[in-house]
Amino acid sequence: MEIKITQTRLVERLADLAKIGARPDGGVCRLAVSDEDRIARDLVVKWMQNLNLQVKIDQVGNLIGIRPGKSDLAPLVIGSHIDTVPTGGRFDGAVGVMAGLEVLETLNDAQIETDRPIMLVAFTNEEGVRYRIDMLGSRAFCGFLPIEEAYEVKGTDGTNFGDELKRIGYAGEFPCGSIHPYAYVELHIEQGPVLDREQIQVGAVEAITGISWHEAIIQGEANHAGTTPIYMRRDAGLTAARIIVYLREIANELGENQRATCGMISFSPNAINVIPAEAVMSIDLRNSDESVLKRSDLLLEDFLKKVAQEDGTSIKTRALAWVKPESCQANIIATVSEAAEELGYSQRRMISGAVHDALMLAKYCPTGMIFVPSKNGISHNAAEYTSPEQLEAGANVLLRTILKLSS
Amino acid sequence: MEIKITQTRLVERLADLAKIGARPDGGVCRLAVSDEDRIARDLVVKWMQNLNLQVKIDQVGNLIGIRPGKSDLAPLVIGSHIDTVPTGGRFDGAVGVMAGLEVLETLNDAQIETDRPIMLVAFTNEEGVRYRIDMLGSRAFCGFLPIEEAYEVKGTDGTNFGDELKRIGYAGEFPCGSIHPYAYVELHIEQGPVLDREQIQVGAVEAITGISWHEAIIQGEANHAGTTPIYMRRDAGLTAARIIVYLREIANELGENQRATCGMISFSPNAINVIPAEAVMSIDLRNSDESVLKRSDLLLEDFLKKVAQEDGTSIKTRALAWVKPESCQANIIATVSEAAEELGYSQRRMISGAVHDALMLAKYCPTGMIFVPSKNGISHNAAEYTSPEQLEAGANVLLRTILKLSS
Repeated sequence: MEIKITQTRLVERLADLAKIGARPDGGVCRLAVSDEDRIARDLVVKWMQNLNLQVKIDQVGNLIGIRPGKSDLAPLVIGSHIDTVPTGGRFDGAVGVMAGLEVLETLNDAQIETDRPIMLVAFTNEEGVRYRIDMLGSRAFCGFLPIEEAYEVKGTDGTNFGDELKRIGYAGEFPCGSIHPYAYVELHIEQGPVLDREQIQVGAVEAITGISWHEAIIQGEANHAGTTPIYMRRDAGLTAARIIVYLREIANELGENQRATCGMISFSPNAINVIPAEAVMSIDLRNSDESVLKRSDLLLEDFLKKVAQEDGTSIKTRALAWVKPESCQANIIATVSEAAEELGYSQRRMISGAVHDALMLAKYCPTGMIFVPSKNGISHNAAEYTSPEQLEAGANVLLRTILKLSS
Repeated sequence: MEIKITQTRLVERLADLAKIGARPDGGVCRLAVSDEDRIARDLVVKWMQNLNLQVKIDQVGNLIGIRPGKSDLAPLVIGSHIDTVPTGGRFDGAVGVMAGLEVLETLNDAQIETDRPIMLVAFTNEEGVRYRIDMLGSRAFCGFLPIEEAYEVKGTDGTNFGDELKRIGYAGEFPCGSIHPYAYVELHIEQGPVLDREQIQVGAVEAITGISWHEAIIQGEANHAGTTPIYMRRDAGLTAARIIVYLREIANELGENQRATCGMISFSPNAINVIPAEAVMSIDLRNSDESVLKRSDLLLEDFLKKVAQEDGTSIKTRALAWVKPESCQANIIATVSEAAEELGYSQRRMISGAVHDALMLAKYCPTGMIFVPSKNGISHNAAEYTSPEQLEAGANVLLRTILKLSS
């Protein structure tokens, strides 16, 4: 168990992948099922073949590289994605797939035969930017999304997912839902600031956050900001402001895994001397515990009733999204922590505040995630950065976790 | 003193004026020094001449109709404006000028000769929409704005005030600053909801509000709304929200004549899952008492320091406007109240939360204002409305006030 991955190989593959869809600012634009995605897929398939993996392309284009085990047990699956957002960085997703290749190459070099087969999967359209169903590939992989439905998803550019997948030559025949993993492990950049600020090398993810997104539309009354006494006002902007302040109270009340954010707002008529008649705002609530997430929704609902009554405004809400949180499996969490400790890396338990393919897999099989630091917590940006040493640490923890789980 | 104005004549003149620049929605667009303004000026001048007034056009185009008195004492001046905002109503400004004409016609009909001369003035560009110096005409009338400076004011359409005034034939020769009124009285719609909601016919204005306008630019840090723990956030949107909530506290603390409003806001990047990096907001503080207005500015300043420190944000403010409040003269306020009471109209003392030509005149000579109700407090809108009976009451109070002051 003293084998280690090779940092330079890992970093080189990452750099080669980052050339495909490279942006002048140093970032990457490699939208799902685009021409750049096709070129990147060709490269990943070539790398898989070079490692003597059996390559399968499934019906939604997930790339599956299989390293057989001693026996035909349920496979251990490593995965992540290679698509990016339009202003993406070099690390989000790519790190997990490149580390998977590096882990398998290390096993090959050490001539280690595992009991279980190991599969590396590069999932299609995790970002959900070009085609609005995020984690599309992992959804279908788990059998949660019918193939016909996936094919009919319209892109923001008017294209059809199915047509484009065929066009780039990655509408495979391997049936989705046919793989039943023994376990799934994903290495990913944190996309948040915790590990970086705390100078910790590895995060053992305990749960992936659930999401409750709402839009609140607040109706008040437009009146002159000078001539309207305070007691006659129905100020939609004030109600919106009180909701934003309350969101912070919700987060403080429900503990460290609660998030509550207003990222978008607009006032109407939006004039300096007119009391806002309407305010439209977004509300993003997250928690890794479903019951607490639901509690945050209820607290919000109660507050909206109260504040509308107090301010003489009316509030309509529209649910924009609900994603159930998922826990990682206790044994895999412990294995990741143990692997990190044995390797001498600093580590902590944490939640994932963003969603990943692992969220889908966690609904399907025992799942774990390994986080490596994101410099300044920045992601979806050219400034996204994880150092070679940090990548090496993460990949070594992935290797050791895989070895522990596969034996 | 039992003479009364004639409602039908007043209403008819208002209706005739409203035809000039009439909008399909029933409102009026008669921007200052536009072709519509020229046609309206021609009509007002004709009406003045029909009443045997001596008509003078001053250097900034203020229309002055003079009804001589028994002796050449300092004149009593009635005034308001006939320009409108682009989406204006039929009443804002026009009511004061039409009521002035009606008062003078009533005096003519009753063959009443006053001790003092009475002048009716229609001031140029009160709204300050086309040419951004509001109350331009009354500023110059009082000698507060040099003529050359006024002529050089650029319009939002690229025109020059002076050139346009000449083009429409209203760059007169009567010198600004040469009239020293004994008193100034302006009848105006309230442009607020107080009289309408309280079902009171007449407002005796005690003071015209001062204004302190600021823009606050709040810098925080853009971070992922899911992955960033609450304690690591620097949320510019939260800071903005706390300021809005505090504005209401300022108003509640500083009494019924205080106003505090945020009418405009924007977040950046304004994305549902990103903590706002920047919030830009407007702050509109008003009070009719200068020392209290200054106190509201200081309270705000202290709070901005406190909230920025607490939220880890930074705040830059930019002063957009400062208008000193002005009191009406005690004797004129009392005269207006007395006139309303003698005529059997319900009345109350109140402040003006909007600015008017009377604000300039109050810095120049003893000044009073009479308010009539605005239905639902609506102004600068096609729905602006004051009933014929309410107009009649206001004009009768103006008439009686003028008679009391001029004798």
